[in-house]
Amino acid sequence: MKALVLERQHELKLRDIDLPLEVGPADVKIKMHTVGVCGSDVHYYTHGRIGPFIVKAPMVLGHEAAGTVVEVGAKVTNLKVGDRVCMEPGIPDLASKASKIGLYNVDPSLTFWATPPDHGCLTPYVVHPAAFTFKLPDNVSFSEAAMVEPFAVGVQAAVKAEIKPGDVGVVTGAGPIGIMVALAALLGGCSKVYITDLVPEKLAIAGRYANIVPVNVRETSLADVVLKDTEGWGADLVFEASGSPKAYEGITEVIRPGGKLVVIGMPVEPVALDMSLFAAKEIRIETVFRYANVFDRALNMIASGKVDLKPLVTGTYSFDDSIVAFERAEEAHPTDVKLQILF
Amino acid sequence: MKALVLERQHELKLRDIDLPLEVGPADVKIKMHTVGVCGSDVHYYTHGRIGPFIVKAPMVLGHEAAGTVVEVGAKVTNLKVGDRVCMEPGIPDLASKASKIGLYNVDPSLTFWATPPDHGCLTPYVVHPAAFTFKLPDNVSFSEAAMVEPFAVGVQAAVKAEIKPGDVGVVTGAGPIGIMVALAALLGGCSKVYITDLVPEKLAIAGRYANIVPVNVRETSLADVVLKDTEGWGADLVFEASGSPKAYEGITEVIRPGGKLVVIGMPVEPVALDMSLFAAKEIRIETVFRYANVFDRALNMIASGKVDLKPLVTGTYSFDDSIVAFERAEEAHPTDVKLQILF
Amino acid sequence: MKALVLERQHELKLRDIDLPLEVGPADVKIKMHTVGVCGSDVHYYTHGRIGPFIVKAPMVLGHEAAGTVVEVGAKVTNLKVGDRVCMEPGIPDLASKASKIGLYNVDPSLTFWATPPDHGCLTPYVVHPAAFTFKLPDNVSFSEAAMVEPFAVGVQAAVKAEIKPGDVGVVTGAGPIGIMVALAALLGGCSKVYITDLVPEKLAIAGRYANIVPVNVRETSLADVVLKDTEGWGADLVFEASGSPKAYEGITEVIRPGGKLVVIGMPVEPVALDMSLFAAKEIRIETVFRYANVFDRALNMIASGKVDLKPLVTGTYSFDDSIVAFERAEEAHPTDVKLQILF
Amino acid sequence: MKALVLERQHELKLRDIDLPLEVGPADVKIKMHTVGVCGSDVHYYTHGRIGPFIVKAPMVLGHEAAGTVVEVGAKVTNLKVGDRVCMEPGIPDLASKASKIGLYNVDPSLTFWATPPDHGCLTPYVVHPAAFTFKLPDNVSFSEAAMVEPFAVGVQAAVKAEIKPGDVGVVTGAGPIGIMVALAALLGGCSKVYITDLVPEKLAIAGRYANIVPVNVRETSLADVVLKDTEGWGADLVFEASGSPKAYEGITEVIRPGGKLVVIGMPVEPVALDMSLFAAKEIRIETVFRYANVFDRALNMIASGKVDLKPLVTGTYSFDDSIVAFERAEEAHPTDVKLQILF
Repeated sequence: MKALVLERQHELKLRDIDLPLEVGPADVKIKMHTVGVCGSDVHYYTHGRIGPFIVKAPMVLGHEAAGTVVEVGAKVTNLKVGDRVCMEPGIPDLASKASKIGLYNVDPSLTFWATPPDHGCLTPYVVHPAAFTFKLPDNVSFSEAAMVEPFAVGVQAAVKAEIKPGDVGVVTGAGPIGIMVALAALLGGCSKVYITDLVPEKLAIAGRYANIVPVNVRETSLADVVLKDTEGWGADLVFEASGSPKAYEGITEVIRPGGKLVVIGMPVEPVALDMSLFAAKEIRIETVFRYANVFDRALNMIASGKVDLKPLVTGTYSFDDSIVAFERAEEAHPTDVKLQILF
Repeated sequence: MKALVLERQHELKLRDIDLPLEVGPADVKIKMHTVGVCGSDVHYYTHGRIGPFIVKAPMVLGHEAAGTVVEVGAKVTNLKVGDRVCMEPGIPDLASKASKIGLYNVDPSLTFWATPPDHGCLTPYVVHPAAFTFKLPDNVSFSEAAMVEPFAVGVQAAVKAEIKPGDVGVVTGAGPIGIMVALAALLGGCSKVYITDLVPEKLAIAGRYANIVPVNVRETSLADVVLKDTEGWGADLVFEASGSPKAYEGITEVIRPGGKLVVIGMPVEPVALDMSLFAAKEIRIETVFRYANVFDRALNMIASGKVDLKPLVTGTYSFDDSIVAFERAEEAHPTDVKLQILF
Repeated sequence: MKALVLERQHELKLRDIDLPLEVGPADVKIKMHTVGVCGSDVHYYTHGRIGPFIVKAPMVLGHEAAGTVVEVGAKVTNLKVGDRVCMEPGIPDLASKASKIGLYNVDPSLTFWATPPDHGCLTPYVVHPAAFTFKLPDNVSFSEAAMVEPFAVGVQAAVKAEIKPGDVGVVTGAGPIGIMVALAALLGGCSKVYITDLVPEKLAIAGRYANIVPVNVRETSLADVVLKDTEGWGADLVFEASGSPKAYEGITEVIRPGGKLVVIGMPVEPVALDMSLFAAKEIRIETVFRYANVFDRALNMIASGKVDLKPLVTGTYSFDDSIVAFERAEEAHPTDVKLQILF
Repeated sequence: MKALVLERQHELKLRDIDLPLEVGPADVKIKMHTVGVCGSDVHYYTHGRIGPFIVKAPMVLGHEAAGTVVEVGAKVTNLKVGDRVCMEPGIPDLASKASKIGLYNVDPSLTFWATPPDHGCLTPYVVHPAAFTFKLPDNVSFSEAAMVEPFAVGVQAAVKAEIKPGDVGVVTGAGPIGIMVALAALLGGCSKVYITDLVPEKLAIAGRYANIVPVNVRETSLADVVLKDTEGWGADLVFEASGSPKAYEGITEVIRPGGKLVVIGMPVEPVALDMSLFAAKEIRIETVFRYANVFDRALNMIASGKVDLKPLVTGTYSFDDSIVAFERAEEAHPTDVKLQILF
């Protein structure tokens, strides 16, 4: 099977590779249609690792995928051949202690597409458990469906934030994940979301959505803006989506007494937190690792028309041009949000 | 002070009545601008009672109010003369056990506008605690502000439902409160809300809003609709807003395993519930009594533009025509949603 | 394999029956040591059905079990031959939507020992998934281990009640499950639990435990007792464990504003609830169906010594005398709590 | 009125000082009986400050108090002269936004005994709001009642931890607060609590309580102990009660996937946290600031006999010997837990 293979740091090849394609009784086989390029794919390409996950052997990239079912296992009842689907890229041990309590995303035995040593899905056909394959509503396109994965990160953050209707939110970092988080927070009940960044182009893209208020923290104090608008009370929720330790500086000023900080971005270095400032307001810090049980929610939300992710696709490439797509992504154009590869 | 006084069942008079108007140090005085007519006001007018609350002495009606601050008490810091405001009509003992845990709405010592024996606000001036008076954002009209009160019931239901983003909801009953609940549920994270009723006109009004799906249960089985759309799983949340015992029939079929029934409507008679059907799915029943700590949330949501309540005002009357307004309300026109009285 | 077979209503035989004994890769085989007699086993024996579950074919009884692992499947890592264990009697589809969110107990495809049409475990050897088989700490006897199942019902109730430390609880019904619920509630944080019944012997047994206060509701008003002790505020939590509709009468008087009613008992008939009384205090009704993810918790609690279940075993029988045990259980002696069958 | 006055850092005087003693309508006047010496009192004595709270003017010390009501305000209904009581030392603005949502402990306008610039209660008579004064059950002694305050910190931690029955807990730091947290966690549902320290004497005192397992982290790896006992899964909850940044090192190893870190200790310096390790397990960090709405809970728990705080009183002093008590406390004897001053 042909696939986009990261041979080692900074060396991509579109070549044949041996991938398991037997369809087990609870599996389906999917003909790929669209795969998005994620920051983590690009990071493995440019750095050869993300934290403890190191590319030690050739690995197929890609984990934001949508396609069409072409074969179903003997025991599969929720899907049939011809169904348009998207796939949740992590496969847990469903009998594990974490899975049984509903937290399969933190099951230590989880495998995940394009996280070393597991192959991803930038290849024309994949086999996947039916339990982690989701039928698309008719009004959800393949392109949108391939964005369910990054949107699911936002939905997970929104779920874990336990948003109350009318909450005021802040998202620090206006990259693709920051925007997904802001949109999920708005759909999850926030009345308004401030989003911060240093790059005007990114803020401009985020600011096109209703109720997302861009704040360029190179020019403006986030605390000033939020405290003024909330009469000194603060934001109910801050979502940290930049991964930058600088985002934590002064953050307790921005959060209201009893508010929450939800951590999505993964800083490379430890972050220095003044716990006494968190405690003085009894701020909760919630952390997010990928997602569990939200793909169906994300699909419902997209199908509802309450959020339009289509404008976030800023470039498409054929599978044969996959490497070009990654080269473009590596350049990190400030107006690029999501690049997708079409089969 | 002139006021709309319910002398006894079915006898309204617009007449002078002695009302306390001294402004305490934590109070504000408000010149009334708009007061909505609520179903409960009409019910006191037509029946002279609601359950255990009986009109035994002349009582001023009205509790959905907006106006302008004309005087502030010595210790008030959050408001100033000229501020446009709406008022939360319940006044608890803030030092009570219920209030201290944040549930001041169920404080047994709570007084509430136009709930016997307490007077309401259909009168040109009222004095109210600043802590329960909320400044209007510039883009919220008096008419919208006078709808914060009924919308707050919906927001309370949405808060207590602990909606997760993407939930599928059902509201039984498409009266004013049912519509408010449906809108609050959508803003609080539901991707879609089915709403039921027997009256086509009411369903048509509700169905004008995006993602509210009307179901006329005289013609169609709610369970069939919901189970088909959710592939047999069921709705995450059902909000009972009709007050009719019939709404409970077969309701457990409609709710998913682990789902919730949120009770807003107050049935006059006891309701027969097959607890074993609720237990077999571990369904939670949550109940709602007015609201606590949601007026500011409701205002945020209206100001955000995410919900437009203005089309729900289907008639306006001058204060001098208050009695005409109540006569109209008593006729229960199916296309009437909210009547408002302007000062 | 010999087993205690309920041939039809009121006809028990200890006879050979064909039971599957192949050990799958994720299974273990257990030599049975102790099996408790549960009220539901007895109910199938005396009535031939429980609600919609009807004994239509011969069925092996028993689901409160402890024994020793004698064989392990190829992929089992958490258990080894010789381990003393107890078994959770329900087997869900772990890939179902309910299981994935952690609510496998309400997975519609769940099978459960001794619930028609599924056989129970009153037989010398059973095969069971390792994921639902729990190793016993050294200080937990087989007799205690066979009580983990009914205690788990109490623990599930305690988990769903979201007890806060120092809560005051009430349990209505002092049968075996009522006592288990009371003990679990105390261990889960209640400072005191009132328990009600009409039978003095049952109340006396419950009252032997510290902080369980028996109230004979034939003689004493529960509301009077609780309101006096809580200065009019009410109990934080009421656990209904009798299954009697009478237990619901006046129950909202007993519960504090914002309190909870947790339903464990399954009344045969619908129960008439005055929803307006529940709503006036915003009381939540939570329901319990067996348990999920609490067997390990129950074991931890027993092993801690914080609860001593041993005095609740009031009679033991050999496997050969199983029918005698059921005949005794049918007589419903008021001083009997738990009968156990030893292999 | 005579009082123990901290004139400035390290200068204590027992002298007359002008304190307000008028009894408002919602107040009570209390004749003091017992006041505990808290680490924070001692810290103000030895350092003249705690973080941003600086002793700039003479301040009466003491905030762990119990006594007898000698006068009640006109509107007080919950207390009468002669009632034995303990007092919650913080007084919030009950009409503030934080108080209305039940979080009065994080109300920015809160005043608190013996936190600069507010006087404490080491004086023979105090006036206090009845709403924050709690009647003692007959079986709770003044000495125990004066420990409600530090125990309340533990109860607050236990409430915020949302303990599930059977949870395994860890407390880092075996000082008085660590022990209170461990006891509250056990009463709140933990089956077992590991407690760590470097000082054998402190561990020995904690270890006298059932189900508290001391771990001297100078000799033993906490992670090794916990992971062995939980078969590699980890503790459900870690309570940080030492205030030492070192307690955070490697802490994520000790916590299970989906577990929680509850921060009670206030480190002086920022703490470096590797957020990616917290996120990889979706660990929640909860913070605790004093307490709200738990004094009655703490009293219930002590009165139940489920916890015996009396052995923690390791020294008593007369009011006239108050300065001796503080000198002893300053010496930080490893076998001292709680010193109390009697009037």
